[in-house]
Amino acid sequence: MSEARNKAIAAGTATAALNNLTTAQKNEALALMADALVANRDDIIAGNVIDIERGRAGGTSESLLDRLRLDDKRIEAIAQGLREVIALPDPVGETIAAFERPNGLRIEQLRVPIGVVGIIYEARPNVTVDAAGLCLKTGNAVVLRGGSAALESNKRIVAALRGSLRQSAVPEDALQLVEDASRASANEMLKLNGLLDVIIPRGGAALIRNVVENATVPVIETGAGICHTYVDATADYDMAEAIALNAKIQRPSVCNSMETLLIHADFAGKHLERLADSFRRASVELRADAAARARVSWAIEATDEDYATEYNDFILNVRVVGDLDEALAHIARFGTKHSECIVTEDQANADRFLQEVDAAAVYHNASTRFTDGFEFGFGAEIGISTQKLHARGPMGLPALTSTKYRIRGNGQTRG
Amino acid sequence: MSEARNKAIAAGTATAALNNLTTAQKNEALALMADALVANRDDIIAGNVIDIERGRAGGTSESLLDRLRLDDKRIEAIAQGLREVIALPDPVGETIAAFERPNGLRIEQLRVPIGVVGIIYEARPNVTVDAAGLCLKTGNAVVLRGGSAALESNKRIVAALRGSLRQSAVPEDALQLVEDASRASANEMLKLNGLLDVIIPRGGAALIRNVVENATVPVIETGAGICHTYVDATADYDMAEAIALNAKIQRPSVCNSMETLLIHADFAGKHLERLADSFRRASVELRADAAARARVSWAIEATDEDYATEYNDFILNVRVVGDLDEALAHIARFGTKHSECIVTEDQANADRFLQEVDAAAVYHNASTRFTDGFEFGFGAEIGISTQKLHARGPMGLPALTSTKYRIRGNGQTRG
Repeated sequence: MSEARNKAIAAGTATAALNNLTTAQKNEALALMADALVANRDDIIAGNVIDIERGRAGGTSESLLDRLRLDDKRIEAIAQGLREVIALPDPVGETIAAFERPNGLRIEQLRVPIGVVGIIYEARPNVTVDAAGLCLKTGNAVVLRGGSAALESNKRIVAALRGSLRQSAVPEDALQLVEDASRASANEMLKLNGLLDVIIPRGGAALIRNVVENATVPVIETGAGICHTYVDATADYDMAEAIALNAKIQRPSVCNSMETLLIHADFAGKHLERLADSFRRASVELRADAAARARVSWAIEATDEDYATEYNDFILNVRVVGDLDEALAHIARFGTKHSECIVTEDQANADRFLQEVDAAAVYHNASTRFTDGFEFGFGAEIGISTQKLHARGPMGLPALTSTKYRIRGNGQTRG
Repeated sequence: MSEARNKAIAAGTATAALNNLTTAQKNEALALMADALVANRDDIIAGNVIDIERGRAGGTSESLLDRLRLDDKRIEAIAQGLREVIALPDPVGETIAAFERPNGLRIEQLRVPIGVVGIIYEARPNVTVDAAGLCLKTGNAVVLRGGSAALESNKRIVAALRGSLRQSAVPEDALQLVEDASRASANEMLKLNGLLDVIIPRGGAALIRNVVENATVPVIETGAGICHTYVDATADYDMAEAIALNAKIQRPSVCNSMETLLIHADFAGKHLERLADSFRRASVELRADAAARARVSWAIEATDEDYATEYNDFILNVRVVGDLDEALAHIARFGTKHSECIVTEDQANADRFLQEVDAAAVYHNASTRFTDGFEFGFGAEIGISTQKLHARGPMGLPALTSTKYRIRGNGQTRG
């Protein structure tokens, strides 16, 4: 039997005990996990050095190596993240609804753990700890399958975390790392119906597409974001510039950054050159439609393929539109229903945009970069869901729960 | 291009208008739909006769033909079902959460339609109307793909409903019937990511398994139920008998009926013969373990395969267990996490059962047959979810909605 299946089964054996834990017991485990990370940091960093050296020898880019790298400070920050999860309210056990039927049945709907959560991700060892902490806080067992580039780091992190669980009420088997980091192990996980209750992919577009296309286990899709900012005719210039620049350059590599700027023709007529200069000073390459290039000669021509691309880079599409309808149509065609923004002083247009745009998060006069569990005040985030079922947008702890109905009677039968 | 894809695209063109409808406009459409069904009943019944005759010529069983059959009374009942949906509260637009962040961002989470819902089902023409009504009430477009055995009925029903929508604010294209009832059309629907937001299968185990195994579109799994009733040592005999009989025979063909009766050895020692006689009088075949057969000679031997079978028939497994732990272990091994019941006068055992059994609905002293949207007071039901994501148990109108975040700022950017 394969490692992935074995470990999913092992995780399943922990769910009954996890379901019965108190919040205090789970928090105690999280504190032990945080301490163990710091106490074992030399071993973890030694493993990380192996990963980094193998990656460098294999030609991994410096930016990817930087995401992979662990040092004392980063390990302390990751441990601190676990400690912050302790302070969050535990959603498990919450009564969502309670009512009595005319026949006397008393029905309650409660939040319960999902069961066994599979996480498939890439070479970011912080995800190993974050996901483990959020899953255990919500009473879930977790099967982690990280990328091969971080394998030695992940093995040592999980060994430290599992070791710490031995001193807690959380069964060690609640936390599993699949060490076979081949594509085959990921693909096998995708079919473990009955052993995994959900798979959450965390990573780039190719990873997520593979999960969505091949999973028979339910998936919470995360990540892809082609986000737009629409600058309306009445937008305040300074606000529009600040929001658009922030949405593009504050962190271009993430899913809630802007890929396309839509500008009302009236605003473009007055301000496009100045706005384009601001992007040029920020080293942003512009790809623009004909109307925009008429004013910004250095921009290159934007194609439909550009409008459909998530650059995650210092590249921006610019398109001039005649009215709000044209902006809405562009977003409906090219958007990925992640985060969309209108900058306007016109309340009716703002309301229409907020109502009509179909996306996880729609903004009036604020940067799309705020679509984030921490920025929303959830205190933690297992990802940003881009699907419409179960959870949409930033997912806090409740997204890692299911529900069950508890019904108390005194002999009722159905007539 | 195929019919299924074309109709999913057509349904998608209706979503923007659907999203902007008022509750009154949607209710008006539902009333028109109900009237149109009744007004066109002769045409619909003429189509149904064609289906029935083709089915009978093809050797379809009388019980399946009965599910397929429409007459004046049944059409009136189906129309009445639509009228009852009018009275239900519209979940769309509901504010689920509203909060302000320290930076002044005002964040609201709202209920919105899912978008385009695909329903794949068998030869029950009432599902055509029920699903259309529930989807339209929640502002969703719907692509229906019913079984070939009901095709002529479904075509005439949908023609009547679409005709009635022409007099309403609901776009006719919101309601689509895929007339190609081949397996290929269903399998194509399963891959229409980006065109269908969710697929809900309604039907037997084979249909549901095909959907779960082949869909890349998110699925809400419904239906399969191997439900247990555990009669504890302290159970009241009359209550236990009434609940167990009701769970088995009130309607054996449905997912919330009982397949296996677990009996504490003490209760079995006192009452098993009498209880078995009650099932015999109700024409229920018993398949039992050795301990039960020692007392009930006419029962045949139960195998692990029997324990894992959803009979949907007048057949019942009976197993004697030594204690609650053994009952919980049996349910964990063979249950499908649908509906489970304990009959007991021991409050501690009841509480433990309600806490520890992992199922959509767990009962103390009431029949599992109550797991049903109408019985729960939801007024309607699109199905009973047996998965843990999005919705679990009976699904009322909110299960047909998604959410979105609406964020209002005054120039906020992320630091």
